[in-house]
Amino acid sequence: MDTLTRLEATIAERRAASPDESYVARLNAKGLPKIAQKLGEEATETVIAALSGTSQELAGEAADLLFHLLVLLDARHVQLADVLAELDRREGTSGLAEKAARTQD
Amino acid sequence: MDTLTRLEATIAERRAASPDESYVARLNAKGLPKIAQKLGEEATETVIAALSGTSQELAGEAADLLFHLLVLLDARHVQLADVLAELDRREGTSGLAEKAARTQD
Amino acid sequence: MDTLTRLEATIAERRAASPDESYVARLNAKGLPKIAQKLGEEATETVIAALSGTSQELAGEAADLLFHLLVLLDARHVQLADVLAELDRREGTSGLAEKAARTQD
Amino acid sequence: MDTLTRLEATIAERRAASPDESYVARLNAKGLPKIAQKLGEEATETVIAALSGTSQELAGEAADLLFHLLVLLDARHVQLADVLAELDRREGTSGLAEKAARTQD
Repeated sequence: MDTLTRLEATIAERRAASPDESYVARLNAKGLPKIAQKLGEEATETVIAALSGTSQELAGEAADLLFHLLVLLDARHVQLADVLAELDRREGTSGLAEKAARTQD
Repeated sequence: MDTLTRLEATIAERRAASPDESYVARLNAKGLPKIAQKLGEEATETVIAALSGTSQELAGEAADLLFHLLVLLDARHVQLADVLAELDRREGTSGLAEKAARTQD
Repeated sequence: MDTLTRLEATIAERRAASPDESYVARLNAKGLPKIAQKLGEEATETVIAALSGTSQELAGEAADLLFHLLVLLDARHVQLADVLAELDRREGTSGLAEKAARTQD
Repeated sequence: MDTLTRLEATIAERRAASPDESYVARLNAKGLPKIAQKLGEEATETVIAALSGTSQELAGEAADLLFHLLVLLDARHVQLADVLAELDRREGTSGLAEKAARTQD
């Protein structure tokens, strides 16, 4: 099983844990606005690392962003699979669009 | 090959395309600050969809966020694999920490 | 009357205008989540201008951010005067704290 | 003197203080990316307060956002007066545009 799918399962499991034991449970206890805020913060840190950080710092901030995106999706009961299916769908559309654009030449 | 890895390869390929044909090439032609800005915008839209949108809207915004994160990582030559490896590493650490926390009881 | 107070009054007035005539009316017609999204976008642009733009670009983005903050406050019927009063209150507290800190030496 | 102009002067003064005594000095010691990050965080908190907080919470977050915007402008040596002049300039343009739009009817 790949990293994000496994992490999604871990996050769903930890949500039910005690807030004393689990960061995910603590975030959920604080409520959805707090989880959304963390996502916004990690996105800002990713933007800043992209513009003024090292590759390693950017990778670390991107990891934080992905982690908190999964926590947010889980809190709203949205599956990562649905997000990836949406990306696949667009990719198909976009691939066709690019093919059409190239055929016009 | 999974969705994100395949999308990462597609983005790297499109970066070299003509800005007339490809959105990814257009974003790259505008430069890193513009790509970073798009990531920030998509994160804000994800925050808002999480607080006041439907599940489908949230999935759509999360897809946009992931897409632009991959474009940003590609523009900085950071591999998705490195980001996922960082998540795996933390997961390992965190798993041990949780085990230790539980053992204390 | 100073710039921000006058702008606040103008925004409140335009809110009631036709969306065909006024950007503020158009934003309000789209709803609070859209106005909040614009604030988030302008903040991201301010962050990026601060890190990689000229002084003039930063001043322009800061102006955009202030404008959309006033639109957002207006949409929630929060007065700029209340925000400034909160800043004054903190300044007072903080000034005392700094004085106390200096007195300790 | 109004709140924001006075706060701008206080921030410029504190920048030169010891990081042990002053939050502004501490932020500046951490560097521009960290100050920009704080602005991004406060913007996210303002977005969330606008969508799911009370009026008082929104006023508090807007105060935080304004404070950190002034710290960011100061760190880049951009004057609040220049930002307000830009808003006045746009207001003038926009006022004329609205008048023209109304005259067309």
